[in-house]
Amino acid sequence: MNFPSRLVEEAVNEFAKLPGVGRKTALRFVLHLLRKDTAEVERFGHTFIRLKQELKHCKSCHNISEQELCDICCSTRREPGLICVVEDVRDVMAIENTQQYNGVYHVLGGIISPMDGIGPSDLNIDSLVQRAASGSIREVIMALSTTMEGDTTNFYIYKRLKEYNLPVTTIARGIAIGDELEYADEVTLGRSILNRVPYERTLPAK
Amino acid sequence: MNFPSRLVEEAVNEFAKLPGVGRKTALRFVLHLLRKDTAEVERFGHTFIRLKQELKHCKSCHNISEQELCDICCSTRREPGLICVVEDVRDVMAIENTQQYNGVYHVLGGIISPMDGIGPSDLNIDSLVQRAASGSIREVIMALSTTMEGDTTNFYIYKRLKEYNLPVTTIARGIAIGDELEYADEVTLGRSILNRVPYERTLPAK
Repeated sequence: MNFPSRLVEEAVNEFAKLPGVGRKTALRFVLHLLRKDTAEVERFGHTFIRLKQELKHCKSCHNISEQELCDICCSTRREPGLICVVEDVRDVMAIENTQQYNGVYHVLGGIISPMDGIGPSDLNIDSLVQRAASGSIREVIMALSTTMEGDTTNFYIYKRLKEYNLPVTTIARGIAIGDELEYADEVTLGRSILNRVPYERTLPAK
Repeated sequence: MNFPSRLVEEAVNEFAKLPGVGRKTALRFVLHLLRKDTAEVERFGHTFIRLKQELKHCKSCHNISEQELCDICCSTRREPGLICVVEDVRDVMAIENTQQYNGVYHVLGGIISPMDGIGPSDLNIDSLVQRAASGSIREVIMALSTTMEGDTTNFYIYKRLKEYNLPVTTIARGIAIGDELEYADEVTLGRSILNRVPYERTLPAK
């Protein structure tokens, strides 16, 4: 592409580093910014600079936080002995949105994936083992994706936590609510039969 | 969405203002930035701030430029009497990439579109008329999209330039190279027959 100015090219390159953004889309973003007020574009730029300067990761669960400990770990309403292990911050947000969970989290920051060169030492697994070793944990819930990488990570963490004699559970896999059986894949359908639950448990609590 | 921090929410809102970016994609961008080095994220932010501070629009053709006049208008190799009228900077880049044009440009900054509330006074049309009035122009080439808005803009500019007795041409419309006739729409096919060219003109120049 012949850019009208070096600076436009630099800006396109910066946007094109974002996941899923190609150079054409990046150029569209740049031209969009150029049509905005200077103040608005400055706020745009400064927000991202502040993002990195002001945000930390929670010392306990590695969630994004403005303080040393995140709001969830600080909260007195949450059960600190119940840990839900997730891949990244988006999963914390997804589970929080269900309003069904009142424990705390542990954000791994990824998943074991030898293909991408990510091993256990690249993830926040040691700090999870330390939390388990502290003796105040009563259950660890694994909430990773059901991929090969997710299964590997589940198994690795399960083995690391074994010596602490903690119940390690995984979230239920089955037919999604609203889905039709005939379109479900057989692995999911088979697992949903094996892991069937008493009917009374599906009724709303009185 | 329950954001882990106000600042994350602000950053998501900033990204979501970009064209075609929803809040889920914006969050993906923000988490991507949070995984990068501080220096890298600062460069990301500063590039956009500089963009607006350092870039101007060319005084003559309204293309993006770092100086008063853009590189194309300054160039001694271009023919200053040949003006190609385009909608925005992307069109300049597209035509430059063909390496078939050696005149200069005039960037309208949009297209007449009553539905979007864009009238002739919102576009750089007066300055085009001034250029035409200067007497040094020998041809104006209209290179706008073939939409209703493009046709309206063509016609409006044609009428405004009429008193200067300049040849106003439009770029050729026809079957794209590599396209098959049976899949072409009838308007394009009909126009390509009406505007047929002598076969010798399609041969490479000797």
